[in-house]
Amino acid sequence: MSSNNAADIALPALDSSAQEATRARLDSLTKPPGSLGRLEELAVRLAGITGDPRCTFERKTVFVFAADHGVTTEGVSAFPSSVTAQMVENFLRGGAAINVLAKRAGARVVVADFGITGDPGPIDGLLSRRIGAGTSNIAHGPAMTRKQAIAAVEAGRAIAADAADSGLQLAATGEMGIGNTTAASAITAAVTGLPARLVTGRGTGINDEALAHKVAVIERALATNSPDPVDALDVLAKVGGFEIGGLAGLIIGAAERRIPVVLDGFITGAAALIAAGLAPGVERFLVASHRSVECGHQAALENLGLTPLFDLGLRLGEGTGAAIAMQLIDDAVAIRDGMATFAEANVSEHKS
Amino acid sequence: MSSNNAADIALPALDSSAQEATRARLDSLTKPPGSLGRLEELAVRLAGITGDPRCTFERKTVFVFAADHGVTTEGVSAFPSSVTAQMVENFLRGGAAINVLAKRAGARVVVADFGITGDPGPIDGLLSRRIGAGTSNIAHGPAMTRKQAIAAVEAGRAIAADAADSGLQLAATGEMGIGNTTAASAITAAVTGLPARLVTGRGTGINDEALAHKVAVIERALATNSPDPVDALDVLAKVGGFEIGGLAGLIIGAAERRIPVVLDGFITGAAALIAAGLAPGVERFLVASHRSVECGHQAALENLGLTPLFDLGLRLGEGTGAAIAMQLIDDAVAIRDGMATFAEANVSEHKS
Repeated sequence: MSSNNAADIALPALDSSAQEATRARLDSLTKPPGSLGRLEELAVRLAGITGDPRCTFERKTVFVFAADHGVTTEGVSAFPSSVTAQMVENFLRGGAAINVLAKRAGARVVVADFGITGDPGPIDGLLSRRIGAGTSNIAHGPAMTRKQAIAAVEAGRAIAADAADSGLQLAATGEMGIGNTTAASAITAAVTGLPARLVTGRGTGINDEALAHKVAVIERALATNSPDPVDALDVLAKVGGFEIGGLAGLIIGAAERRIPVVLDGFITGAAALIAAGLAPGVERFLVASHRSVECGHQAALENLGLTPLFDLGLRLGEGTGAAIAMQLIDDAVAIRDGMATFAEANVSEHKS
Repeated sequence: MSSNNAADIALPALDSSAQEATRARLDSLTKPPGSLGRLEELAVRLAGITGDPRCTFERKTVFVFAADHGVTTEGVSAFPSSVTAQMVENFLRGGAAINVLAKRAGARVVVADFGITGDPGPIDGLLSRRIGAGTSNIAHGPAMTRKQAIAAVEAGRAIAADAADSGLQLAATGEMGIGNTTAASAITAAVTGLPARLVTGRGTGINDEALAHKVAVIERALATNSPDPVDALDVLAKVGGFEIGGLAGLIIGAAERRIPVVLDGFITGAAALIAAGLAPGVERFLVASHRSVECGHQAALENLGLTPLFDLGLRLGEGTGAAIAMQLIDDAVAIRDGMATFAEANVSEHKS
């Protein structure tokens, strides 16, 4: 990527003939046309992304990128920064919610350190893609340099390319970073133009007073840094996070290889806003899993033109909602491939 | 069941200590308390129903009850009545959507004939619980006699009792019956007091003109039969269906044995309204899977005090939405049992 916005990124078009073949197949199956609603939409979308009307997703990965945020010194989170590294260890031992739900979905979990405070050193199973030792405090200045922003995006993009080379068929985005709802709110406010108070929520669970303080911190970060809304790298550098840059790159890298990407919640939605700024049209390759409790998430999804599949009141992150959506994707594929047609089953078709 | 409303039905209470134990377990796990939203609610609810804070659901069944409806002679459906029997054969051969989605959920499919037009005779794998050869046309008189209504409910209740004896742990309701959205709309209007036009939808896919006609037919059925809204057996007999009565019985029978019942869409929601009339409090044992495209479904769910888990724009029936929800139930159980606690993982807890 050049220091301008990603002039070297070229995304494929959706494959309309694969979509039409899928629609025709779905309409031949023993059910009223369209009666499986969004499962049918999903099957069509996945055909368009992959270019394959019989695409399947045996090889799935949830990418969990972790980093710390200097803004936590302002007291914006209910948990201390040290929890980021502790939870990364938990991911690697298989004890977190994302491990459980990824296993249920038949997906691997790949964890990458994009800049946890205090270098954990080499750890078995942890990809080290450290851009720094946590971002700087956005209340006082930019989170990172433009060069670091590019490095984060390129590192994520390279992870996607490597995974594609190894046969990855379906990617999901996840994250861990105490303080990263603050960064996500700042990004969402910067890109959508909405005031901070409308896109800021309680994160892991702060009270009313702490929420008001968090909004004030985000307003200060936006005023101090003046991120340029039409320059996604500037937004990322000024008020983003290393893991968010990495996820933006992962999204772009997967799209370049026609691999569908399942978004999780608010943080990965903010990463998708950055990705869409760097690579317009990348949203065609995305599946929005759930609508998060975080109020800024809906604004991010609307900006991307995405409608989430479900709302289960989730606010955990890690990729948990995306892992659940992977099961729905396998449901959609199973319907497409596993049902009898009207002709095969000798069932009368619709009268009209 | 007596000819009065089910004076012999006694439902257990929810087990509040099993619920509290589950809540405590969930709060000890490495995630912010409550951050998995409705998955956590589900785990608590299932503990209350089963009385077991470590309940699991290896043995699942989707019960698909089929019957025909005399009202189809009024032209209320996009498909001919003959499709009911054709789809039952499709279920038995494993070619329908419910077969695919039940398999994905690890559930068996049990199909019962409660009164298809034209006795199919003995068929391998089909339970015969025929109450009649399709209901009578509700536009001209009652769907069935009160005695038939009781027989349908008792047959469903007995199926649940037999399944419980065989170790069933989780039940889902499904149905097949061309014309049965008309019966479900009539039941919903009768029980909720809402006008027919507000609880009547397009079923398998009729156009505007046919929809207006369907509403008029339901209005005529309600005017002709005057079902008594506080007498659930009367509502079932006057404007219901044999499979709907069977499902109401199944729901009651499962609840009596502390087996959670996952509702599917509009038809099974109408069956739950009948069940709740016969056995007040039965709704405690129900999990509403999805919100159907059929507008009457939301009214039925509100009457029952249930909030569906998701809305995927489904309008197929058969139990398809319920089968998808069974996967979420297994997700909730996996979270409860598979995650590390804060203490086990050495993760710092919430500051406050």
